[in-house]
Amino acid sequence: MVKNKAGTSNDHRWLTTKRIESLSDGVFAIAMTLLVLNIAAPVMTDPSNEILFDKLIELIPHFFAYAMSFFLLAVFWIIHHKQFSTIKRANETLLWINILCLMLVVLIPFSASLRGEHENLQLAAIFFDMNMLVVGVLFYFQYWYATKNHRLIDKDLDPELVRKGLRKNLLIPGAALVSIGLSFLSPQWSSLPYLIIPFVIAKFLKS
Amino acid sequence: MVKNKAGTSNDHRWLTTKRIESLSDGVFAIAMTLLVLNIAAPVMTDPSNEILFDKLIELIPHFFAYAMSFFLLAVFWIIHHKQFSTIKRANETLLWINILCLMLVVLIPFSASLRGEHENLQLAAIFFDMNMLVVGVLFYFQYWYATKNHRLIDKDLDPELVRKGLRKNLLIPGAALVSIGLSFLSPQWSSLPYLIIPFVIAKFLKS
Amino acid sequence: MVKNKAGTSNDHRWLTTKRIESLSDGVFAIAMTLLVLNIAAPVMTDPSNEILFDKLIELIPHFFAYAMSFFLLAVFWIIHHKQFSTIKRANETLLWINILCLMLVVLIPFSASLRGEHENLQLAAIFFDMNMLVVGVLFYFQYWYATKNHRLIDKDLDPELVRKGLRKNLLIPGAALVSIGLSFLSPQWSSLPYLIIPFVIAKFLKS
Amino acid sequence: MVKNKAGTSNDHRWLTTKRIESLSDGVFAIAMTLLVLNIAAPVMTDPSNEILFDKLIELIPHFFAYAMSFFLLAVFWIIHHKQFSTIKRANETLLWINILCLMLVVLIPFSASLRGEHENLQLAAIFFDMNMLVVGVLFYFQYWYATKNHRLIDKDLDPELVRKGLRKNLLIPGAALVSIGLSFLSPQWSSLPYLIIPFVIAKFLKS
Repeated sequence: MVKNKAGTSNDHRWLTTKRIESLSDGVFAIAMTLLVLNIAAPVMTDPSNEILFDKLIELIPHFFAYAMSFFLLAVFWIIHHKQFSTIKRANETLLWINILCLMLVVLIPFSASLRGEHENLQLAAIFFDMNMLVVGVLFYFQYWYATKNHRLIDKDLDPELVRKGLRKNLLIPGAALVSIGLSFLSPQWSSLPYLIIPFVIAKFLKS
Repeated sequence: MVKNKAGTSNDHRWLTTKRIESLSDGVFAIAMTLLVLNIAAPVMTDPSNEILFDKLIELIPHFFAYAMSFFLLAVFWIIHHKQFSTIKRANETLLWINILCLMLVVLIPFSASLRGEHENLQLAAIFFDMNMLVVGVLFYFQYWYATKNHRLIDKDLDPELVRKGLRKNLLIPGAALVSIGLSFLSPQWSSLPYLIIPFVIAKFLKS
Repeated sequence: MVKNKAGTSNDHRWLTTKRIESLSDGVFAIAMTLLVLNIAAPVMTDPSNEILFDKLIELIPHFFAYAMSFFLLAVFWIIHHKQFSTIKRANETLLWINILCLMLVVLIPFSASLRGEHENLQLAAIFFDMNMLVVGVLFYFQYWYATKNHRLIDKDLDPELVRKGLRKNLLIPGAALVSIGLSFLSPQWSSLPYLIIPFVIAKFLKS
Repeated sequence: MVKNKAGTSNDHRWLTTKRIESLSDGVFAIAMTLLVLNIAAPVMTDPSNEILFDKLIELIPHFFAYAMSFFLLAVFWIIHHKQFSTIKRANETLLWINILCLMLVVLIPFSASLRGEHENLQLAAIFFDMNMLVVGVLFYFQYWYATKNHRLIDKDLDPELVRKGLRKNLLIPGAALVSIGLSFLSPQWSSLPYLIIPFVIAKFLKS
């Protein structure tokens, strides 16, 4: 409520964050759901349980790419969620940074399908990692911008919490860089660093 | 309102449930709508009313798979809706359980297309049932976690209602297990147990 | 606000209408947007402005089917919007009626693609009309149920307005019946009755 | 809040703008996300990093069409957002204008795929520009209608702000007209005027 009032009634120069959240939730929900279209139901000329079993086994890299991309989209959504739980007002610049973020979030289903289909190609792995790197850096930049410009965030916000939040935004770009490095050794396994993130987040939250 | 205040202003460690609901509603809406893409408009080399009629008759198993999957997604959405009408606050763990639920909810259109295309294959039936089983168990676990941790639910909530709600969450996993059993007899008809659920729910609600 | 309070705090047996609206808005938005997938970008072996022009001319029936289906989905959305501007509380039965409505709303992109691809086949026209008829009747039934059961609607609601609202819900089923009749004469033009609806609505609103 | 009260409790003839915003956000989010489906993951008979690199280079016009269409959809969404931050009430006519806007917004992914696939065809460029022109003019018309009819907007709104807002709505139609003109010289580069818009907007905002 306080958010809305500040956004619309008192000061027309500030945009509300409510619709930014609503558009972003929509984009994330659709990007997450489109991922499943990358897993095509197997076509069989002579269908039997045995052949279907083999086909499903062949799909395992696709299922894995699906789960990992869904997980990473979820991480970005949680970052967005947390950022906007402290961002109380928006301006034109924040709006455009957010739109740039979404533009690269929507690319993730494409990168994931590339990664899933060519699991052994280093270039596919690096393309996927670059996508994660850029989205991660943009999210970092968004929160840096919003917290630097003190009119956009909650006044009562503990600066220590802000700094911790900013630091956490660098987890995925860091994992992406490590993953790019690993892709020179094995493109197939280079995505493993992403899976370590939740444990690091969990550790951060306790400390 | 009370929800928002508790979630953002007083205690920053707790997340609001508003955006979890918003993301989940989006994911459910898209998953429900993607189901219709499993029904392809019939292609005819020499179109006529008679041929179209035959083609539409051939599509009946697909329509049936569509209706059943839509119905089951709706049941899960109602369960989600009911859980979050009593869950007032969220924490990191609840967020991740909810995301895991959504990850498997999004798989339902894939499982449904598999089931619809291979209605006579036991493996397709079991794959579909396993999807339902896992989603159902995750939802049960989510509510168990939220109600066990008393800071997340409404304080005034009647413990009897909570217990009843938990019990109802086991209806779909139960139906999935019966359905897996029936698939050994007839894969084509093994999904019937799911259709009994609404009547059981209705009975529960009255008692 | 009043709506929320009544729905969650005072009486746990009643569900809030907020999330029903949110799910329904999502389903309508996606169904409307999926319609555009029925218009495939023309494939040309030897691309030129002239050939593209011819191809776009050939797509006109598809554009027309798109516009009409979008328009009808919009009419149903407005009906939903209006119904829920007076429905203040939900119960399990209303929820299921609404889900049944949505299940048939989601079928509209399929019916529209069938109609657009086989504009001369009576069966395709009737399939489309039947879809409209069933959705329209379900929406009529939903409002009849909600207004009959007085605990679900706004107490201050003028009964005259309710009766008028109910009557207006019969406009599309009526148009669908006329359209089915016309399909015996010309399947291609039988959809025209739907286009008269907005003018009738406009007249109703003034009177 | 004030918005809701005015919309539902006091005066039943006026519709709330909340659900118009919710439907529109959904439609914009989906249209933005569908754009990525225009970029197909490259199919390779003999996959290697070199071939994938060439394939990705070939996709550059598609990436460019994607980025530009996403950007233009974002501009329209911001316009919508801004209009509805001052539009406090809706009536039947405004609802239909908004639906007409959305109907043409949903066409943008189709126009973009046409433009991306035939980057050298003037007709594809003009089709895309016409789509932008019509959406832009409809949005202008929507705000003109809402502000002319003073019962729909915020009473405290500065008329100078309204006039400035209206003027800004003409930026995209203007760019579309220039782009149509340029398409006679070079269809491939005729879209450049759209990219100048944000700088003009930024200048407007400062002045």
